[in-house]
This record gives sequence, C-alpha cells and structure tokens, in this order.
Amino acid sequence: MSEVEIRKPQSSLQEQLAQIHDLLQRRRQAEELLHRHASGGRQQRVESLLQRQVNNELQKRLDGLHPADIAHVLEALPPEDRLVVWQLVKADRDGDILLEVSDAVRESLIADMDEGEILAAVEPLEADELADLVEDLPPEVLPALMGSLDPQQREQVQSALSYGEDQVGALMDFEMVTIREDVTLETVLRYLRRFDELPEQTDKLFVVNQDSILTGVLPLKWLVVNAPDKTVGEVMARDVDTFLPTDDADDAAQAFERYDLISAPVVDTQGRLIGRLTIDVMVDRIREESESEALGRAGLRQEEDIFASVLDSLRNRWAWLAINLVTAFLASRVIEVFQGSIEKLVALASLMPIVASIGGSSGNQTIIKIVRAIAMEQVGLHAIWRLWRKELGVAFFNGLIWGGVMGIVVAVLYDNPALGAVMTTAMILEQMLAAFMGVGIPMMMLRLGRDPAMGSNIFLVFMTDSGGFFIFLGLASFFLMH
Amino acid sequence: MSEVEIRKPQSSLQEQLAQIHDLLQRRRQAEELLHRHASGGRQQRVESLLQRQVNNELQKRLDGLHPADIAHVLEALPPEDRLVVWQLVKADRDGDILLEVSDAVRESLIADMDEGEILAAVEPLEADELADLVEDLPPEVLPALMGSLDPQQREQVQSALSYGEDQVGALMDFEMVTIREDVTLETVLRYLRRFDELPEQTDKLFVVNQDSILTGVLPLKWLVVNAPDKTVGEVMARDVDTFLPTDDADDAAQAFERYDLISAPVVDTQGRLIGRLTIDVMVDRIREESESEALGRAGLRQEEDIFASVLDSLRNRWAWLAINLVTAFLASRVIEVFQGSIEKLVALASLMPIVASIGGSSGNQTIIKIVRAIAMEQVGLHAIWRLWRKELGVAFFNGLIWGGVMGIVVAVLYDNPALGAVMTTAMILEQMLAAFMGVGIPMMMLRLGRDPAMGSNIFLVFMTDSGGFFIFLGLASFFLMH
Repeated sequence: MSEVEIRKPQSSLQEQLAQIHDLLQRRRQAEELLHRHASGGRQQRVESLLQRQVNNELQKRLDGLHPADIAHVLEALPPEDRLVVWQLVKADRDGDILLEVSDAVRESLIADMDEGEILAAVEPLEADELADLVEDLPPEVLPALMGSLDPQQREQVQSALSYGEDQVGALMDFEMVTIREDVTLETVLRYLRRFDELPEQTDKLFVVNQDSILTGVLPLKWLVVNAPDKTVGEVMARDVDTFLPTDDADDAAQAFERYDLISAPVVDTQGRLIGRLTIDVMVDRIREESESEALGRAGLRQEEDIFASVLDSLRNRWAWLAINLVTAFLASRVIEVFQGSIEKLVALASLMPIVASIGGSSGNQTIIKIVRAIAMEQVGLHAIWRLWRKELGVAFFNGLIWGGVMGIVVAVLYDNPALGAVMTTAMILEQMLAAFMGVGIPMMMLRLGRDPAMGSNIFLVFMTDSGGFFIFLGLASFFLMH
Repeated sequence: MSEVEIRKPQSSLQEQLAQIHDLLQRRRQAEELLHRHASGGRQQRVESLLQRQVNNELQKRLDGLHPADIAHVLEALPPEDRLVVWQLVKADRDGDILLEVSDAVRESLIADMDEGEILAAVEPLEADELADLVEDLPPEVLPALMGSLDPQQREQVQSALSYGEDQVGALMDFEMVTIREDVTLETVLRYLRRFDELPEQTDKLFVVNQDSILTGVLPLKWLVVNAPDKTVGEVMARDVDTFLPTDDADDAAQAFERYDLISAPVVDTQGRLIGRLTIDVMVDRIREESESEALGRAGLRQEEDIFASVLDSLRNRWAWLAINLVTAFLASRVIEVFQGSIEKLVALASLMPIVASIGGSSGNQTIIKIVRAIAMEQVGLHAIWRLWRKELGVAFFNGLIWGGVMGIVVAVLYDNPALGAVMTTAMILEQMLAAFMGVGIPMMMLRLGRDPAMGSNIFLVFMTDSGGFFIFLGLASFFLMH
C-alpha cells in the first residue's frame, strides 16, 4: 500500500521562498561575472552555462508550486527579482497567477507583458475570472480579447462587468451543474458520470425547471446517501439561501460565514438561476473587507505593494497627510489663543499634550468598538443614546482615576495644587469629549450613508487635540491667571 | 412544480431584529401595566394574557431563526433584553447558540443558567464543540458533564483540550468518513447509503489503511463522476494538504484560503488520521485574526461585548491607557527641558504638536503596512534594509513637501523666516524618524518572537511624540536663541 504524499502547506512555502531567494542571488552573481568578462571566450561560456543552470533550477521549482504560492512568491520579491521570476513561469499558468496576486503587483506584472503574452495568459480563464482581470488590462488588447470569446462567454463577461465591484454580480461564476427535479438520483449519477470533472467548490447541484427557475438544491452529500430510486424532488432542499446579483457583496460574505455555506445560487428577480457564489471568493472578500477597514483607518487609500516605488507610495499616502496637516494646524491655533497664559506659566506647554494624547487613545478605542459593531450590524442609529450613556460612564471613571493620578503628580512636581486640580478636571472633561465623539462620529457617518471607518480617525484626533488644548488651557487661564 | 422558498439571508435578518426589538418593547409595556395594577383582578388577568401573547410571538419568531442568527440577535441586545430572549429560546438549541456567540456574550448567558440547563444545553454537541465551550463553563458542572460522555467522546474532548487555542488540534473535529483504497466506488456508494447523513462540510472521504494511516482522499466530486467499477486507489488523490495538530492555526487558515480547501485531514507524526479541519472553522479564524489585530493595535485586550458594563469596559481598557499616560508624561518631560526657549518664543508651544502629530500618522501608515506584510509572510527580517531605504525615501520627500508648505506658512504667519526654516527641517527629520521606527519596531517585535501588531503603536507614538518635540525644540533652541 503506497504512502500518501503529505504536503505541508505553510512550512514548505517559507522554505521554498528562501530557496528561491537563494537561487536569485546565485543568478545575480552569475550575471555580474558575465558582465565583468564581457569579452572573454571560454570563461564566458562557462558562466552563461552557469546562468542557464540556475534558470533551469528556478523554473523547476516554480513548476512545482501552486499558482497561489507563485503569487505569494511574486508579492514577496522586490520588483527586479519579481520580473525575473515572472518571465520563468510557464505561460499557461500566467492567467491563474494574475488572478491570485494583489492589485498592485498585478499591475506591475501586466506592464511587463506584450499583447500576445496577455492574450495567451487569459485564454484558459473562465468568464468570471476574465471579468476580474479585464479592468487591469491595457485597453488596446480588449478588442482582440473579446473577439476570441464565444458568444456565451462574451455575454457572461459583459454581465459580470455590468455590476459594481461591491455587488454579488461581480463575484459570481457561471459554472453551475443543473438538474431537473422529476428524475431519479440514479439518473443524476449517470448524468454526472458523463462529466470529466465537476467545477471547483461544487457541493450541491442546482435544481431548475424548464424556464430556468430555481426550484431547489441537491447537496452531493444527500445525493450519495439517499436511495438511487428516489427522485430529486423528494430529496432536494427547498429552502435555499439565494442571492440577487445586485446584493451587497459583504452582506453575502457574512451570510456565507454565518450559515457555513460552500456555494449558493444567484437568481434574478424572477427566480431564474443566473450564477453561483462560492466560499473561496467569499473568504477573499472577508479578508479584503477587514484589511481595507484597517488601511482606511490609517488613511491608506489602497493595499500597497510592499516594494512599491517611492512615488507610488507618496501618491497612496499624501491625501491623509495633507488633511492631517490641516487639522494639526487648526489645533495649533487653539494653543495660539492662550499664548498669554503659556507665557505666564510655561508648564502649561509641557502638560497640554498629555491631555490631548490620552483623549486621542481612548476615543480611538471607542471608535474601533463602534465601527466594528456597526459593521457586524449589531447596533444601528437607535442605539446611540444607550451607547453614549455607557461610554460617557466609562470615560468619567477613566478620567477620574487617571486624571486623579496625573493631578497628584502635577501638584507635587510643580508644587502647585491648583495646577493639579486643573489637570484632573481637564482630563475628566477630555475623556468625556473623546467618548462623545467616539460614539458620535461613526454614527454620524452611518447617518450620512458613508463608511463609518473611513476617515473617522482624522476627525476624532482633530476634536480630541483641539478640544484637549482648549479645555486644559481654558481652565488654566480661567482659574490660575489673575 | 413547486416554487423554491427563497431565503434572503441578510435583509430579513435586519428586519427580524427590528421586529424583535419591537416585541420586546411591547413586552416591557405590558410588564409596566402589570406592575401598576399589581392588586387588580380582571384588569391584571388581561394584561398577563397580553404578556403571554407577546412571549408566544417572540418565541415563534426565534424558533424560525438559524442558531447563528439568534446569536446575532443576542449580541445586538442590551443585557436585560438579552436574558429575556435567552429564556425564550428552545433548550435544545442552547448549545448551538452558545457556540456561535462571542466570548463576552457567552459568559453573560452561561452566568444566567443553572447546572441542569447547562448540561441539557451541551448534551447534543459534538466532542470538538464541547471542547470549545468547556473553558467557559463553571467548574462545578464539569464532573457531571464528563461523566455523561462515552469513553470515545471523553477521549476526544480531552485530546482537543490538550492543544493550545492557537493550534490546529484545538480547532479540528472528529467527524471523518473513512474508506479503504482497495474497494470499488460502487461499494463506497453502497456504504454511504447506510448513513442517514454525512457530517457537515464533507467534501471528501479520507482513505486509510488498516493502521489508520492516511493514504489519500476521495473528493465526493470525483466519486460521482468516475465509473463505479474503478477502485478508490485508482481514483483518489495521493498528494493531500495535511496538518499536524500542533501546527499553527493561523497558518492553517491561510492554507485554506490559498488552496481553496473545504476540509483537510489532520494526522499525527506517524501519518495516522486523527481529525479534520473544515472551512467554516477556518473562516471564523480568519475573521478573528484580523479583528484581534485591529483591537490589539488600539490596546483593547479582547473583543468587548458592545453593551458590557462600565466596569468590564474599564478593565478591558485600563492597561493601554496607563501605559499611554506614562509615555505621554515622558514626552512632556522633553518639552520641560526646553522651557527656557518656549518662554522666549511662545510660538514654539503652538507649533510643536504639529510636528509630533504628522510624525505619528505617517509612522502609523508605515507600521500597518509592515505588520500586514509580516503577517502574510511576504517579508522577513532579511528585508529590513530594503524596507528602511524605501520608507526613508518616502519620508524624506513627504517631509520636504509638507515641511516646505508648513515652513512657508510659519515664516509668513510669524513673520520669521528662520522659524519657518526650523519648521521645515524639523518636519523632514521627524518624518524620517517615524519611517525608521515604523519599519524597525515591528521588525524588532518579530526578532523577539512577539506579535508585531501588539502594542507597536504605543512605542511608535512615544518615539514620534518625544522625538518630534526634541527635534523641533532642539533645532529652535540651537538656531533661534542667542
């Protein structure tokens, strides 16, 4: 009895990457030697042989990798090495790999291909995969590409392109196996044996009537455990999680997560089966959703190729920094108003950033919690009063405890009990301002129909900074200056 | 031909939640009336009837919901309403619901149950599910619980409990269907028909020899398309993605994502099949992983019940705030050193927070990028020089552009070109400090074998705040004070 070939997915991948790094290093050395002896005869032949050997070995390694792993290798390599590896990948796998890499890396790879290579790469792809790539392809290849498709494929590509990228229609594929409900399971089994293979992620067959209206689904699991003389109609499930192509993609992803779905039918408003969603696409969506939330909060417009050029990085980041500069400048104008007080008691200048900083962090904690709860649809606008009450309570005690500690430290350090009392009061008020804003800002975004995560931090920091300065310097001016 | 019952998962869920809110509202009103007429006769009977009606209607609604949806409803309700709903849920579904709710909410539900209810709730669960719940159960129910299991289940629970929660062993289940490789597909089909049902998420059968050594897998897809007279050995896949129970759970989740797996075998070091992983558990893991990253960055120890009590919230957040207070205080000591300069030129007090603030945001952008790339295993320690070079480049240009703008504004505003020049220089240096730290801090955490996300922000803000104050005030003291 033969042993199973056990593939250890992750650990071997890191090793592979290390080995590829190594080979690329050797390749660079061979190249350098070649350049140095650019005129040489036998010497040069030996070195070019060496280079060919390295290339062969690299190619062999790449051929052994899953397209997703090659995509990972490409993302992990700096641009020049990336293109070397890309050239060595077998052309018929290019399409699958392009589908797997991140948008930023995909751009850099496509920029390196000519029209013929692009057409050859995308030829083996399914219509829905093609639709994913189309917008990254240079416009001049599109006529030739669309011309190479059969009418059904062309229609499918156009249909997939007609939906926004946040809609189910852009994520569905068209590889459904459909059956009728009046046949027996025996007949279904015989029908399936005519296939060489079923589509990836097929866990169920879709049952439709003569008008293509979906009437149920037959999980493969049920097909194999039930008696072959039963009909599909007797066995199939009639309550089915279905989606419309116009449904929100993130909602669909949450439904997959919640109901442990593997595939689900997409129907039009008449109930006609037009496509299907699969868990692999939904998993990517879940990953992207949480990443874009994290990136959005930090003011990054999009996922960035880790080795992106300085210029690309500047472009991705400048907007946030510009806004931040404006808000920081405005906050500094608040300080300006109290210059007189600072001149009289210069300790205020050292202490004011403490108030602002603590407000910023605790407001940020609140915002993250609220944004998450909104995204999971646990709270809506109606919960705002309850959340305010609770968060203001937390803030009051936080302010009392830490403000109290800080007040004592300040009173002792500057031998000025009045300054300590101002510090404590300011920290309590600042904590409550931060809590008020931490709940209010994402709720306001929700009310305005905008993404509650995006940019909420900018506004929060502006409020806690300028508010913190105002509260602390204002209290100090009022109570300490005579 | 019957129409399919189309279930629109998400939209109906929001409606359901709204209706449940509504019913709970009516229930509260009925209760209030009842209290007001506590002595009344007929009046009171009518109202208690009213209350029973509302309860019935609530119960009917809840019975129609998927356990995951009830879990969602429970998470979205404030504590007092949550317990009302929890009491109305049919006891035999309690176990499934407890598995679905977040840890914080689970605690609050279990605290409301007596020993008998808990034992009844967990009775229908599988061994791996039980293991997930065990640590949240009150210790006094465990003897009775373990006593109610048969020896095989008890062993499975103990095995699952013996692994850390970040290991594959803690996530695997034991519901594998195994077959031998020398039988025909026909025989396999006949064997499967003896089952009432196959386990959830069964997309493949596991092929083992008489020593329970895994020799291959047979996807159901392949079972149904191949001729029934072929043997399992002819058809099965021999290269299989397998996991060890000691493998890292996040690595396993990434493998599922990368290779589009639905289920995968877990084997011991001898290759014996001991369990399986399924995509639904991995999806939850992916979601948790990215959430805990976001929470960790904000200094929240754990997911927090959105309606947690003020005390629970304080406990979850105090550590971060305490650390932040210390770092903010230390940064304020830097300012203290330059009090003399501020007294002479009070504008410095207004301008210094701008420098620190911009440094903090751009350092945060860098950290998020690096942490993400480390998590995706795109970069390791060897990439540090390349990343530093690139990020310092971005930082220099960012500093030059925005520092330049700010320098001009300051020069004009204060009619002081020298102060403008100090501002520009300080912003360039601060940007570069932020970039240096944004790459260096996560890499240092990686080197020390710690989670690169956790707390990296605290250290960054400390460096950019105190560094920014030092750079700006230091330059100003050196060049502007005579």
